[in-house]
Amino acid sequence: MEIDVSRPVLESNFQIAGQIRQDLVSRGIFVINMMSSPGAGKTTLLERTVEALKGELSLAVIEGDIQTSRDAERIARHGVQAVQINTRGACHLDANMVREALASLDLDGLDLLIVENVGNLVCPAEFELGEQARVMLLSTPEGDDKPSKYPLMFRISNVLIVNKIDLLAHVPFSMEAFRRDAGLIQPDLIIFELSALTGQGLEPWLDWLRARVAERKAAG
Amino acid sequence: MEIDVSRPVLESNFQIAGQIRQDLVSRGIFVINMMSSPGAGKTTLLERTVEALKGELSLAVIEGDIQTSRDAERIARHGVQAVQINTRGACHLDANMVREALASLDLDGLDLLIVENVGNLVCPAEFELGEQARVMLLSTPEGDDKPSKYPLMFRISNVLIVNKIDLLAHVPFSMEAFRRDAGLIQPDLIIFELSALTGQGLEPWLDWLRARVAERKAAG
Repeated sequence: MEIDVSRPVLESNFQIAGQIRQDLVSRGIFVINMMSSPGAGKTTLLERTVEALKGELSLAVIEGDIQTSRDAERIARHGVQAVQINTRGACHLDANMVREALASLDLDGLDLLIVENVGNLVCPAEFELGEQARVMLLSTPEGDDKPSKYPLMFRISNVLIVNKIDLLAHVPFSMEAFRRDAGLIQPDLIIFELSALTGQGLEPWLDWLRARVAERKAAG
Repeated sequence: MEIDVSRPVLESNFQIAGQIRQDLVSRGIFVINMMSSPGAGKTTLLERTVEALKGELSLAVIEGDIQTSRDAERIARHGVQAVQINTRGACHLDANMVREALASLDLDGLDLLIVENVGNLVCPAEFELGEQARVMLLSTPEGDDKPSKYPLMFRISNVLIVNKIDLLAHVPFSMEAFRRDAGLIQPDLIIFELSALTGQGLEPWLDWLRARVAERKAAG
């Protein structure tokens, strides 16, 4: 029974996501969908990213959470637009939630929209939100065995950020094994190693965002 | 549409879980359902637990994963019964999966059965598996803000294990704030602080398991 009903739900989500993508591309806005386990450091990385780029780009953030608006408050403190979606128990954002959140954002002149999904390595992988790139975070304390255990998330991601590299000396994590296993699942993954907490390794990630935004503007 | 169909699915799961609980209680087996984010350390804690208790208790483990049988292999190396369930994409175990796994275990003389759920702080909280206690792990690198962000998991748990305390000096985590927020959601939570990696703080957790198994035997 579950399988029968999930198909129309997914198709409808796919259609709404397509409309969002088309609309935001035509406005020259680059959109990423950021996903990870709970506590991998998405919001901390977003705070760093917003703080570094807000002087040169116009940014907005949509925050997805089961409950609370803590994350949107953390982002709004940096002086950029931030909207919170509460999923009321659902383990992922869907395109319809993003469409509603977009209605409360000022999109004029926006360069970059970052959607932070619910902390979950499973459900969000199945729901497109209208993004132009999917970015997943994996923090080193989670362990290097995650690619084979959560393959769908790795397979659908364009960018993989290995966060909390400041803890590498204290946790059992082989970067070599992790990169090899992730590459077997998705050979085109762009991988950044950084620490959102200390700021180490942030520049290549920021440069990647700058380049994508510039491409979007050039194409528009 | 999703809401309409989830009700019968949940009710049916609840009934199967009730049958499993009744059956295992009558056999004098204590059963726990262990839940956490991906990479919080469930399997490492299980390895430690099995290694410490296998001389005095008869143990078995059911491992839940989206894919791979790595975790069951890790447990089986310690010489106890271990069965792997692959959920094929589902973000949680359900009671029916556990019923099938039980059919391939030798339950005669078993004292303790540990079911390791899929790594996820959301979905598993909604599905009883026939357990007599729900144990959640939260590792310190995940941050101290998780109780208010994933309240259902905290609310339905009987035991909270704060894992990776060996990293406390290296991560932003206030044990005081975390204990306060978790206690606001579930005042009866039994909390253990330990490091499955180093073994620090393991004894109170093992003693709790020993006491629950003894109670179960005494009642049977």
